[in-house]
Amino acid sequence: MKIEGALLFVIAASMLPSFFIAVFNKENACAAAFIAVITVSIFISLLSRLFFGRSHYKLKSRDGFLIVSLGWFMASVVGALPFCVSGSFDSFIDSFFEACSGFSTTGASVLTDIESMPRSILFWRSFTHWLGGMGILVFITALLPAFGINGQIVANAETTGPTKDKITAKFSDGAKGLYKIYIVMTVAETILLKFGGLSWFDALVHTFGTVGTGGLSSYNSSIGHFNSLYVEIIVAIFMFMAAVNFNLYYIAIKNGRLSDVYKDEEFRFYTAVVIIAGIVISFYNCVFDKFANIGETVVNAFFQVISIITTTGFGTDDYDSWPIFSRFIILALFFVGGCSSSTGGGIKCVRILVGLKLIRRGVSLKIHPNRIAPVTLNGKEVSSETAIRISNFIFTYMMLMFGGMLLISLNGFDFMTNLSAAASCLGNIGPGFNLVGPTMNYALFSGFSKLVCSFLMIAGRLELYTVLVLFSKYYRNPDRAR
Amino acid sequence: MKIEGALLFVIAASMLPSFFIAVFNKENACAAAFIAVITVSIFISLLSRLFFGRSHYKLKSRDGFLIVSLGWFMASVVGALPFCVSGSFDSFIDSFFEACSGFSTTGASVLTDIESMPRSILFWRSFTHWLGGMGILVFITALLPAFGINGQIVANAETTGPTKDKITAKFSDGAKGLYKIYIVMTVAETILLKFGGLSWFDALVHTFGTVGTGGLSSYNSSIGHFNSLYVEIIVAIFMFMAAVNFNLYYIAIKNGRLSDVYKDEEFRFYTAVVIIAGIVISFYNCVFDKFANIGETVVNAFFQVISIITTTGFGTDDYDSWPIFSRFIILALFFVGGCSSSTGGGIKCVRILVGLKLIRRGVSLKIHPNRIAPVTLNGKEVSSETAIRISNFIFTYMMLMFGGMLLISLNGFDFMTNLSAAASCLGNIGPGFNLVGPTMNYALFSGFSKLVCSFLMIAGRLELYTVLVLFSKYYRNPDRAR
Repeated sequence: MKIEGALLFVIAASMLPSFFIAVFNKENACAAAFIAVITVSIFISLLSRLFFGRSHYKLKSRDGFLIVSLGWFMASVVGALPFCVSGSFDSFIDSFFEACSGFSTTGASVLTDIESMPRSILFWRSFTHWLGGMGILVFITALLPAFGINGQIVANAETTGPTKDKITAKFSDGAKGLYKIYIVMTVAETILLKFGGLSWFDALVHTFGTVGTGGLSSYNSSIGHFNSLYVEIIVAIFMFMAAVNFNLYYIAIKNGRLSDVYKDEEFRFYTAVVIIAGIVISFYNCVFDKFANIGETVVNAFFQVISIITTTGFGTDDYDSWPIFSRFIILALFFVGGCSSSTGGGIKCVRILVGLKLIRRGVSLKIHPNRIAPVTLNGKEVSSETAIRISNFIFTYMMLMFGGMLLISLNGFDFMTNLSAAASCLGNIGPGFNLVGPTMNYALFSGFSKLVCSFLMIAGRLELYTVLVLFSKYYRNPDRAR
Repeated sequence: MKIEGALLFVIAASMLPSFFIAVFNKENACAAAFIAVITVSIFISLLSRLFFGRSHYKLKSRDGFLIVSLGWFMASVVGALPFCVSGSFDSFIDSFFEACSGFSTTGASVLTDIESMPRSILFWRSFTHWLGGMGILVFITALLPAFGINGQIVANAETTGPTKDKITAKFSDGAKGLYKIYIVMTVAETILLKFGGLSWFDALVHTFGTVGTGGLSSYNSSIGHFNSLYVEIIVAIFMFMAAVNFNLYYIAIKNGRLSDVYKDEEFRFYTAVVIIAGIVISFYNCVFDKFANIGETVVNAFFQVISIITTTGFGTDDYDSWPIFSRFIILALFFVGGCSSSTGGGIKCVRILVGLKLIRRGVSLKIHPNRIAPVTLNGKEVSSETAIRISNFIFTYMMLMFGGMLLISLNGFDFMTNLSAAASCLGNIGPGFNLVGPTMNYALFSGFSKLVCSFLMIAGRLELYTVLVLFSKYYRNPDRAR
């Protein structure tokens, strides 16, 4: 409970900038909503500190899942309050959906006219991306060791990727290092975007969306609004960087060798996918357009590939109007996702890479049944336990997606809308195809579907198991032997 | 080469009934086509026996893949000849597609008006289902031991399911036993359908389609043509039976205990999926129809569930006009498929079952990282190597399906058409959704797409690896160490 109290405090504190923006812009309803939520949250947080502050319950591994899942749920509820209290959103479910979308860095929205929204609300919406990107609970446990909480347990449940390596071992230092990189990236992009002629407000909002790989914009036509090649390239570069394993930066900086980044197999795979998909789509779209505007077509293709593989979801072009072959490649990228330990979502490059290596091994084993052919990653052997875990993850991912699709289909919409909405929410991307395409939004969905999507977003962000274990009978009854 | 010669001989011989039907019905072009193909095939087969008959090359494990893949390719080419030589089909690609669809027991068709076709052609089309259902090469090697070929090697490449158990150990006896069961089932269904008022011709054609889980019918409206509850129930029961592991029947008959069938975990899973999917769809469709014609809705729902899960593809109702929620459940069944060592295709129940158990284990391992929780099947532990192989299969399946989808999408058709065509061909089902829905066919597809579909059908029937290994560099260069 201590940690949830701290979380409440941090969220309340992070609403302060939005409050000041509301005051500055004379958005009175919003200012009132923010200050009310902040006050009540801090009051409850202090109360909980008073009651639970002295408990010294020793955290077990299994508690991490509950703390983190509960924490994200609470963050989304509290984060949703300013949306509905200020009257900007019609219902609490809409607000909750938007907050889940923000914290999970999905970037899906129920807003039909973003530009008519109060600026403070738009700022808060984007700021949740920034908070969610690196993991808000890791932030709390890393920066506030005063709470005396075992951060490792929380980190295991909140960070992404199949292997929790050295960094998380020396947890507190590592997490601080990663946060420093995150902050440097944030500042750098904000300044670069400001150079591109954006207002400070726009620069910050789009930076939060980029480095958190979220994708919520303050404009209806997303990045396309600026109509600036410079802005598109800056955003594309930072999206690309945000979905790289942050540990690689950390190690590269520590060793002073940038080449450490290139040597990583996951990074190479990620880069290769971006380049190949970008070239194929560029070529196919150019042929389709009969080679009109080659430059624009190529830039849009690469921007969109990066935006989708990094699970950001920013747009400069309506990919849903591309030829079906190109759309299929985009759909494939929905499942790839960024690198592990980055702010990107999806299945993650490393898992796809190991999966492909396992396929190759399977084929070669069929021919030479007795040859021992271990799968390696960065020169190290992947244990069969890890291989099973990775295959398992992919399988679970598909099952959850299918389950989501099935529930969303109760709306009665078409196949592609359901499929892409589920894939997009679970992969923390944002836009999908058809009714949830890049020029559309989730406003059409029923309340139930919005809740399903919200669940998928949180489950996807926390890499499935953290949320799923709570539904397991083994969790509820730990003494039950298998 | 000996075995390919024998295969040619057997295929030529199995065209004889179709030839007699052509003569009997005075379909002169067809009769001429059949006798020409038969004569040439037998001539080539005898020639090859003359040249290669004395070679005593010892088969290696890797040769099985080439023999079987080549055999299926050759069977489809030879099987396609009567279609185009008789002038019933427009092109060789169409004929090849139809023959692949027949042998692989898919049941996809390019015919727009089936009923206008010569009866001998329709008979041959359905007879290929029967030949392909149990594995034509296993048939040859089992029933003709005179050829002196190691049937085990062929069986490993041709039979389905992850575990090749006792039966294949004592190969020749086992295969004969399975074929006896297959023949008994065929005779029983034919007689029962005859009782239902069908002509011998219709009874045979639909029996071949049922026990081979193929799904080609001699009528445009498939089983719906007969408009008979009796026929629907008989066909449903035999479809259900044909997709059960034939080894279970064999063991049950040997031990004289039918309960051995019920005890099998895969069988239970398969039955449970049929019942649950049937009930859910029945209920949802009844609600959708406002409870008009409850009986008909329920029968259609169960018939369609069985038809799809067994990968047959017979139809009594246009499931593509069902509400989207029900269609999604049908789509899910596209991937499940029958039991291992049955005539059904798809991923197979046992793999899905183990996959689900692995997910459960993954969740419980997250909570209790140190508890050893083996996955069991029928009381035996599933080794981690098998677990990897199964996960791998599912992953490879998805990749192949996606690759197929991508290539088919070059046609420019909509998402669901591409997705369902690829899933349907790879799973050996037949109909899909939208443009390839139950009331439609594959005639719209380009020649290239038809070839892609043909490849998927054969790859799906031979369980991927048999075909895939041929493209592997390890196959082409066996000395290359990993």
